[in-house]
Amino acid sequence: MKSLTEYLVFHTKTRRDYINITEQVEKLVKKSGVKEGLCLVNAMHITASVFINDDERGLHNDFDKWLEKIAPFEPISQYQHNRTGEDNADAHLKRTIMGREVVVAITGGKLDFGPWEQIFYGEFDGRRRKRALVKIIGE
Amino acid sequence: MKSLTEYLVFHTKTRRDYINITEQVEKLVKKSGVKEGLCLVNAMHITASVFINDDERGLHNDFDKWLEKIAPFEPISQYQHNRTGEDNADAHLKRTIMGREVVVAITGGKLDFGPWEQIFYGEFDGRRRKRALVKIIGE
Amino acid sequence: MKSLTEYLVFHTKTRRDYINITEQVEKLVKKSGVKEGLCLVNAMHITASVFINDDERGLHNDFDKWLEKIAPFEPISQYQHNRTGEDNADAHLKRTIMGREVVVAITGGKLDFGPWEQIFYGEFDGRRRKRALVKIIGE
Repeated sequence: MKSLTEYLVFHTKTRRDYINITEQVEKLVKKSGVKEGLCLVNAMHITASVFINDDERGLHNDFDKWLEKIAPFEPISQYQHNRTGEDNADAHLKRTIMGREVVVAITGGKLDFGPWEQIFYGEFDGRRRKRALVKIIGE
Repeated sequence: MKSLTEYLVFHTKTRRDYINITEQVEKLVKKSGVKEGLCLVNAMHITASVFINDDERGLHNDFDKWLEKIAPFEPISQYQHNRTGEDNADAHLKRTIMGREVVVAITGGKLDFGPWEQIFYGEFDGRRRKRALVKIIGE
Repeated sequence: MKSLTEYLVFHTKTRRDYINITEQVEKLVKKSGVKEGLCLVNAMHITASVFINDDERGLHNDFDKWLEKIAPFEPISQYQHNRTGEDNADAHLKRTIMGREVVVAITGGKLDFGPWEQIFYGEFDGRRRKRALVKIIGE
């Protein structure tokens, strides 16, 4: 069994952001030498997400608006978590909707994707250094 | 390490549908010869879902009604994504709630399931050919 | 390839509960002898969840309140599933938001976690015996 572990680093300028990391992950699959296996990509922070969807800016705006409706940032005092001095309770909820991780099949040495699948890092409490993990296992 | 890759094809008659694929996946586990390992099942389209829940028609109706409330199809113009000529922005959101994939343990050559766990393909923008991926790795 | 399969048992006193199971999972990783691999942890019941977030009681209260708003327990008759004699349709929906499973990387013989990541069993229809599965594969 082969394996590869790498950490991607992010430091977004805005509180919320959606970054396409597909190419970075593809390069790591190649680097791993794994032909048949699984690729796990997960946020290492509990206010961020890794998810698969379409690389279409309008859709990302829809996601953002929708998440803000389901789990609004303000009023900050509506969340008990924020009494600890934080203001990011909404980010924990938003990330829960979008998901922590994706597991992608590797077939013939490549991410086995449908036509529009792209991997995104979703940031909900940015403006600081955060990481995602890529773990590849297989043969 | 053994591995198996197969693609399941769907073409639903209705825009939204929920299809039990447990038996199909079980057959592939058997075919793979894997006794201890992991089985990934994921939608290959970003407006569809693979999830695990109960095979109870009333519950599926509850899911459907609930998803339509959280991410309504209409008005179509409420979503920026639909300005690209699409009308399926809601399907991207619905699939996000239900999830892209499941990872199931294989123990003793079988899907290691609790009493009511069943795997479903959830379609949110159907009436066309779409696929799900089954990837099995183990020994 | 090494593998390990274990079942965690829960019997909560309340209908809903959030239990930190990180230590139990860490012990199993050690027991497995796997240095590089993947660890799957999933609820075996379709009204329970395994998820990763912060071990902060205020946040758990926020989750609980938020889930009750998105998928309220009452009125029981609002859900078609409950016409089967059940009263737990809301628990199926709540678990869907929180997720069935997590997949965690094992690196150097340990769960490869970010600073605040902790694994929780989320119960939405408790007061009875239920299980979660831990499956570890790797080398």
